[in-house]
Formats: sequence, C-alpha cells, structure tokens
Amino acid sequence: MSKRRGRGLRAAAVRLLSAFTMAFVVSCGTPRADPDGTMRPSIHEALDQQAAAWNRWDLDAFLATYEEDLLFASSGKLLRGRDLLERRYRENYGEEGRGVLSFSDLEITSLGPDAALTLGRYHLQKPEGAAHGQFSLVFRRGEQGWRIFHDHSSAEDP
Amino acid sequence: MSKRRGRGLRAAAVRLLSAFTMAFVVSCGTPRADPDGTMRPSIHEALDQQAAAWNRWDLDAFLATYEEDLLFASSGKLLRGRDLLERRYRENYGEEGRGVLSFSDLEITSLGPDAALTLGRYHLQKPEGAAHGQFSLVFRRGEQGWRIFHDHSSAEDP
Repeated sequence: MSKRRGRGLRAAAVRLLSAFTMAFVVSCGTPRADPDGTMRPSIHEALDQQAAAWNRWDLDAFLATYEEDLLFASSGKLLRGRDLLERRYRENYGEEGRGVLSFSDLEITSLGPDAALTLGRYHLQKPEGAAHGQFSLVFRRGEQGWRIFHDHSSAEDP
Repeated sequence: MSKRRGRGLRAAAVRLLSAFTMAFVVSCGTPRADPDGTMRPSIHEALDQQAAAWNRWDLDAFLATYEEDLLFASSGKLLRGRDLLERRYRENYGEEGRGVLSFSDLEITSLGPDAALTLGRYHLQKPEGAAHGQFSLVFRRGEQGWRIFHDHSSAEDP
C-alpha cells in the first residue's frame, strides 16, 4: 500500500467518524419529538376511536385506548387500572345513561420521542342536558402504539 | 506504508466505528430516563419550595415553580400563563384565606430525559376545616431546571 493510499484511508476514516459524531449530536442533543411524524395522527385516531367506542357502548374498545395500568384522576380521587375504570363507567353511566360523547379543542404537546400531553374538552350530550369538562391525557408510545397512561378529567360546574 | 500497517489502520477504524455504533445504540435506542439522577430530587425540591412559598404567601416564589406559559386546568376550565394563575390565587385565596398547604402521596414517572409526570394529593388546612384534592403535574426540564408546564387539579367532594 502506498503512503498516499494510507493517508487517504486515514482521511476517509476521520470523515466517517466526523459524520457519525454529527449524527450522534443531532440525534441525541435534544430528545427527538415525534421523529417519524406519527404522534399527532395516532393520538387523533385514538381519540376518534375512543369516542366512537363510547357512543356504540363498546367498553372493551373504549378501554383499549388506555394502558392496562393506567392512572385515572377525577374529583380529587385517583383510580388504578382498566378494571376499576370499567367499573366506574358501568356504575356512573351504563348503556342507557352514556349520552353522546365528543371532544374538542385538542392541544397536543410532545414531551419527548415516546410521550405526549394532550389537553382537550369533552362534551356529553344527554336528553336532560349537556355536560362539559376539561381533560389532560398523558399518552405514551409502547409496543401497541400510543396509549393513555394518565387521564385527569374535571367537569365544568353546571 | 506496508500492507500490514494499512490493514491495521483499517481494523482500528472498524473497531472505533463499532464502539461508536454501540454508544449510539445504547444512548439513543430508548429515551434515557433521568440520565443524571437529578429528576426526582429536583421535583421533590420544587414542590417543597412551592408549599413553603405558599405558606409564607410569597406568590412570586410560588409561581416561579411554573413555566411562564403554563397550562392550568381545574373545574373543567383551562387557564394559560403565570399572570392569570396569579390572579386566580389572589382572588380565590389571598393572604388571609391561604391556609396551610401540604402535599402527600407523590408518585413521579419519567416520560423521557426531560419530562416527568408527578401525581399527588394536596391538603389545605384552614380554621374552618380542611380541603383535599388530587393533582397531576407535567414537569419539563429547561434552562432553569425542572418546572411545571401543566397542572390539572381537582378537589375532593367535601
């Protein structure tokens, strides 16, 4: 191997390392928020599915938008896990009392590559009147996509 | 340069690149939750300072635990920014009506290197009785450390 080729190889190795270092700095310097652009559409889709599941009273599909070990806060109380959340919904609403659920004013803030805060308003239309409130959802991306890890909802005074 | 030295240089470059690739995979494969171990102590300290500031009615110090553009949810309403939060506290509490604030049941979950969810209970002791509730705080790490970006609080029914 000639001296020239040896220098060429060294220079190429240095360039490759510099490129790698740049990629490292760019990728790791700050957490990449939504690197593949799927966060917002996935969260919108999950909430569309959630409202549709509620409105046809398919509680399994409704609850599938939550992580199994979810934390749900409302009226100053904290509740853990899908089973207790299901019981709460069956006792407080039920098929007859479920009304028509819709969401509005969604505001999604990335908290890193695999977490996002979603704020919004819920509306429950019932024959006797409508109920409105504010929700705060912490979504996390896991093996099964974006799911709700934490939900804090509060009702507006009637 | 000899053929042997050329091969040695190539092998060294490959080893260096492999080491770099490993570092890249280890560092970037999953978001590093609290890489320097400061998240939990910083959040505990921020909340200790917040309660102490409330109890001596130092609203500036109390509000400094929030980001400037915070989002605060309570009773089905959303409020933006420190100025409106300050007005809410001055109107709803004031120096005479502030009571003694304390927190309990803190539960901190990392959401990535620069974000964390903190759940807990608040207690406000007043001469006429105590008020209790649940809070959900989204902390973010910025240039000034860990601050509250979002707060959703709900009161327990008396």
